[in-house]
Amino acid sequence: MGDNTLGTRFKISSFGESHGKVIGVLIDGTPAGLNFDLDFIQHELDKRKPGQSHLTSARKESDEVEVLSGIFNDKTTGAPICLVIKNQSYDSTKYDKFKEFLRPSHVDYVLLKKYGGFADYRGSGRFSGRITAGFVMAGAIAKLILNKFNIFTFAYTESIGKIADPTEYFADDIEQLIEVRDKSPVKALNAELSIKMENEIESVKNLKDSIGGSIKCVAKSIPPGIGGPVFNSLEAKISRAIFAIPAIKGIEFGAGFKAMNMRGSEHNDPWIIKNGEVKTLKNDSGGIIGGISTGMPLTLRVAIKPTASIGMPQKTVNIRTMKETEFELEGDHDPCIVPRAVVVVESMLAIVILDQLLIEGFIPTVLNS
Amino acid sequence: MGDNTLGTRFKISSFGESHGKVIGVLIDGTPAGLNFDLDFIQHELDKRKPGQSHLTSARKESDEVEVLSGIFNDKTTGAPICLVIKNQSYDSTKYDKFKEFLRPSHVDYVLLKKYGGFADYRGSGRFSGRITAGFVMAGAIAKLILNKFNIFTFAYTESIGKIADPTEYFADDIEQLIEVRDKSPVKALNAELSIKMENEIESVKNLKDSIGGSIKCVAKSIPPGIGGPVFNSLEAKISRAIFAIPAIKGIEFGAGFKAMNMRGSEHNDPWIIKNGEVKTLKNDSGGIIGGISTGMPLTLRVAIKPTASIGMPQKTVNIRTMKETEFELEGDHDPCIVPRAVVVVESMLAIVILDQLLIEGFIPTVLNS
Amino acid sequence: MGDNTLGTRFKISSFGESHGKVIGVLIDGTPAGLNFDLDFIQHELDKRKPGQSHLTSARKESDEVEVLSGIFNDKTTGAPICLVIKNQSYDSTKYDKFKEFLRPSHVDYVLLKKYGGFADYRGSGRFSGRITAGFVMAGAIAKLILNKFNIFTFAYTESIGKIADPTEYFADDIEQLIEVRDKSPVKALNAELSIKMENEIESVKNLKDSIGGSIKCVAKSIPPGIGGPVFNSLEAKISRAIFAIPAIKGIEFGAGFKAMNMRGSEHNDPWIIKNGEVKTLKNDSGGIIGGISTGMPLTLRVAIKPTASIGMPQKTVNIRTMKETEFELEGDHDPCIVPRAVVVVESMLAIVILDQLLIEGFIPTVLNS
Amino acid sequence: MGDNTLGTRFKISSFGESHGKVIGVLIDGTPAGLNFDLDFIQHELDKRKPGQSHLTSARKESDEVEVLSGIFNDKTTGAPICLVIKNQSYDSTKYDKFKEFLRPSHVDYVLLKKYGGFADYRGSGRFSGRITAGFVMAGAIAKLILNKFNIFTFAYTESIGKIADPTEYFADDIEQLIEVRDKSPVKALNAELSIKMENEIESVKNLKDSIGGSIKCVAKSIPPGIGGPVFNSLEAKISRAIFAIPAIKGIEFGAGFKAMNMRGSEHNDPWIIKNGEVKTLKNDSGGIIGGISTGMPLTLRVAIKPTASIGMPQKTVNIRTMKETEFELEGDHDPCIVPRAVVVVESMLAIVILDQLLIEGFIPTVLNS
Repeated sequence: MGDNTLGTRFKISSFGESHGKVIGVLIDGTPAGLNFDLDFIQHELDKRKPGQSHLTSARKESDEVEVLSGIFNDKTTGAPICLVIKNQSYDSTKYDKFKEFLRPSHVDYVLLKKYGGFADYRGSGRFSGRITAGFVMAGAIAKLILNKFNIFTFAYTESIGKIADPTEYFADDIEQLIEVRDKSPVKALNAELSIKMENEIESVKNLKDSIGGSIKCVAKSIPPGIGGPVFNSLEAKISRAIFAIPAIKGIEFGAGFKAMNMRGSEHNDPWIIKNGEVKTLKNDSGGIIGGISTGMPLTLRVAIKPTASIGMPQKTVNIRTMKETEFELEGDHDPCIVPRAVVVVESMLAIVILDQLLIEGFIPTVLNS
Repeated sequence: MGDNTLGTRFKISSFGESHGKVIGVLIDGTPAGLNFDLDFIQHELDKRKPGQSHLTSARKESDEVEVLSGIFNDKTTGAPICLVIKNQSYDSTKYDKFKEFLRPSHVDYVLLKKYGGFADYRGSGRFSGRITAGFVMAGAIAKLILNKFNIFTFAYTESIGKIADPTEYFADDIEQLIEVRDKSPVKALNAELSIKMENEIESVKNLKDSIGGSIKCVAKSIPPGIGGPVFNSLEAKISRAIFAIPAIKGIEFGAGFKAMNMRGSEHNDPWIIKNGEVKTLKNDSGGIIGGISTGMPLTLRVAIKPTASIGMPQKTVNIRTMKETEFELEGDHDPCIVPRAVVVVESMLAIVILDQLLIEGFIPTVLNS
Repeated sequence: MGDNTLGTRFKISSFGESHGKVIGVLIDGTPAGLNFDLDFIQHELDKRKPGQSHLTSARKESDEVEVLSGIFNDKTTGAPICLVIKNQSYDSTKYDKFKEFLRPSHVDYVLLKKYGGFADYRGSGRFSGRITAGFVMAGAIAKLILNKFNIFTFAYTESIGKIADPTEYFADDIEQLIEVRDKSPVKALNAELSIKMENEIESVKNLKDSIGGSIKCVAKSIPPGIGGPVFNSLEAKISRAIFAIPAIKGIEFGAGFKAMNMRGSEHNDPWIIKNGEVKTLKNDSGGIIGGISTGMPLTLRVAIKPTASIGMPQKTVNIRTMKETEFELEGDHDPCIVPRAVVVVESMLAIVILDQLLIEGFIPTVLNS
Repeated sequence: MGDNTLGTRFKISSFGESHGKVIGVLIDGTPAGLNFDLDFIQHELDKRKPGQSHLTSARKESDEVEVLSGIFNDKTTGAPICLVIKNQSYDSTKYDKFKEFLRPSHVDYVLLKKYGGFADYRGSGRFSGRITAGFVMAGAIAKLILNKFNIFTFAYTESIGKIADPTEYFADDIEQLIEVRDKSPVKALNAELSIKMENEIESVKNLKDSIGGSIKCVAKSIPPGIGGPVFNSLEAKISRAIFAIPAIKGIEFGAGFKAMNMRGSEHNDPWIIKNGEVKTLKNDSGGIIGGISTGMPLTLRVAIKPTASIGMPQKTVNIRTMKETEFELEGDHDPCIVPRAVVVVESMLAIVILDQLLIEGFIPTVLNS
């Protein structure tokens, strides 16, 4: 309870439920004077919208941003910005039917324990992936500001199941990467692998099963010296934000879990001079040392578990009868959440980076555009 | 700046530097009435003390806990508890010599950028692994309280470099595991692998190199329904705390990164009835669904990078001359930080769990022991 | 920036502007299972609505509560509750006319300095008294919960200008006091003085002037032992919340400013036994000692300044020409804000008390009504 | 529990008890590069030290500042600064004798209710006025920084009992005011009234009674545009901090409680041009409008209650026997706390102002002195 808020200076509060009236986000601390580019926000939001392709849930939602506060003369004012999208298409009746079956790896049981049966269970209510629409709206504003300071965040699908793209892309131009990625229905960067990933998703979908994957993400051009020790470390702040995204079960920075097999002589990033500036020869640190930015690209990777909602028969417990049983979940679900999660991860990183840059005074509270 | 504090109800603030007068922790929010078992705290602290074996830094420190506030009649009072250990044995002169060389994967450069040359650089100052002694002291208090409610945290060395222990131990009795682990100089659970890990560390030490590894950690008997959605999710809170430990570059819960290759039918944990209680058949969720505890063991794994301080010659930059150069770091360093980090990870998890149980009213603010 | 949020467990975030689309409040941390009595919330809101009588602004607003999230089956779910009222009747054109005149004791100048000309200035935008509608909505929910635990907050108009009611009412039955107060257009408790206060307001209104006053407020039946030392003291938390209400320039607890003229022998509240419970003979401490509740009524008094918007000619500065000038403010303003502020003060106190009782575990997170 | 911390960027955490080992403060967020003027800090601390004159408690304490962390080469490093003073002279035995008597207007009863008998009761433990020594140490650092930006805070004794000084001093030079004030044993600004106040304190002391008073405080040269709406208003933040000082029961800004009797035409501060800058003709707003600084002096006044510890016989309850009784408190107490509280109020204001200026980026995180 009482903790749907993230951030210090760029503070976002998430609200709304899957089958409630709206999904919303309240954003407090946006600098004044930003041109409020509603089209960009809508464009970002469209990247996580359901029903984009045959690979995603068929739930029909226009997901159109509505501004409730904080904008005046098409600019931010420094006041809290409240943005909502309306929920439109859903059939809640099916949920009643399955109400007493604890869906495996779903929140039914923990909600019962935590909220004593009062939680909105329709479409997982407050715990639906749909609430990430709020993160994307807030992230879009963060990106608009970061971009003015030449800072960019970018994410893409690295793998779907065992189909993985080992290429290292982050030295490339971000705008070009965005263009390539957004043509791929799975948000991958390699055209051939993109098709294989699509096929993999299709195939698990036909089996009424689901599949996991991984996303890689970068923030480029963060100045060196941002972040802090201990609980204010960039890894600490970013991981906290990223784990707010449902279905993420792991995060690593730079070499990450590979570092456990490495020697110091291999992992250490030698300092070099490049164009008169201090850089590192390689970037196994992922742009962060001691919790503070080095000026190199900040890189991270997240693991996304397979969607819990699958149509195959599953064993479970009937909570009313307290008996073990088997059931089949009806409804239309994403067989793989990875492609739609890409923009969410990217947004979350932008939100945290902006917050930190505001805290440290690198970005001012009034933007004179 | 201003962010050396973690927690809401059980709030810890870290202070002190590697070569300053003390390393300390201020703990605000400890319930009143706890028997303040100083021996236990010292016992915990001894597990991360330098100079325990030939595998660790030879820095000689007694690391004896001193209580500055918050205890009366050998019990906690509800007031902030300030604990310090004094720094004793160090030779700071060597740091002056290397002051202008940016040690690879060390904080020299980022501190310069962040604190403008004013940071205490001796032994990495505020960014030394030595500050984790404060986490262990706070963690010991958290454990004393959790244990009263039959909740235990436990960590061990899963791997050193490529020597990894694949066994699943968390179903076993924690007290027994502690006993076995504490006999191993590398804090492993398998006697044979423990020797191999020791040898591996010895061997990199002889090469003036270092090595990474991984730690697995569990919290047992957390009641179901603890945690929350979004930014209050257990993964979010735990990861933020764990990344405050220097050298950690990755974290995963339950199946973690393995989940990215799994199908839903494989990853989903079927609900079952066991001894009249709802449990899951297996635990790929790591005891957390939707950010909330399921009542199953909460499991996590962290990746620890190889120590950045190595004696081999390294390429780097001389920040005064702004020229690339080579240098050899003097001094005595841990070739592998994993064994000493085990108790730190365990402590951090205890701190977060206790904070959450206090927030949710599961543990009261006065303990009648 | 970034600080429109109050509270820890019962967290309210204020948003919206006087002439924007809505005035809203996001409430995070409401216990699950509360019957969501929309009529009560509306009833509370009606007490601060403009246009209630000839004494208030004639701005016409229905101020009808709309629920955007957090309610399911007419009960709270534990999820964030977003409530808004729509802004309807306003003529923003007049503000353009006066845009370059700095209204005396108004926010025009400070907004310019803080937000660089981007703030919404219409009707003082984000700084309008109208945003307190959000506090009342959140306060209504807080009251619904507190009342279940037999705790009540109550405020009334003590004085308008020099017309003051010296009677001590807080020993009386709160429900009766509410009934009496709500019959008075100025929210006073003495019928005769109420008429005098009305006349005073009428008279300053006719002069195109305004008048200040004071409000007394009580919270009854708070259990002893709630609150804390230092920055968690009840006075600290309450005063912070109360000063969020525009126009309040002073606050005192118990004997307050009178205590500065008192001797200890006079001010000290002797402990007594009453019906087997420890109480104090009198209550100059205002129910708080050392920042912690004594179990006696928590009493406070606030000073409200006269409305800054007056129709009389006033001297000021034209910020465009940077010349001193005189101008007359058009528009319809409350000649005295005190009567409408009564329910706001009462609400704020309820919000803080509930937050504290949730923090301390006195009120659980699931209500089984 | 868990709330002995104040501030966001300049964060202070208070610890220690009256008869524990130390009184301390942990300060997180001090900009790096400040010359750490220990003499100034000691000088400030000496102003609240007991035993300064015949008017204060005779408790003998050297109150010498000891630095535990955060300073390197006599400069701040950006790391947390831990400062303590040792407790030396006290006789705790007398407290056992009175343990079962609830001292009137003292914390005995509320501590019992809150901490279940585990609180350190000696000398009121954590609730002693002695903990304000920590505020003064932190305040001294805040002043050192503010002074570099030409911002000053100043407080003085306005009244002791009925002896009040009506003069308005805040237009005068602050350094001169400090000099005059510090010559007065009661910290007053008028020599004649100072003697009368001394006599008043002497006289209540002889009666084994105590007396209250008031303190006026100012912060000069805060730039306009600092602060914020709602919960971030300067009044909200300052009042929260000031009420952390024991014995304060009221606070007002600008005209404060006098505003309740004023008309708008009288209270409104007309904007003027002075030396090419926008100012107000008078300052009934106390330098704050809409929670934001106007650039005029920020003025406030606090009411201090008479010391609860008096030697006269008092009625009370014996908590063991649960019977009403009479008792006489032994020991040596300040008959009036006002003179020693002056520097505490001044310090608290400096702490809040600095925090806000850091948050808003007006003061940078590295000072190049």
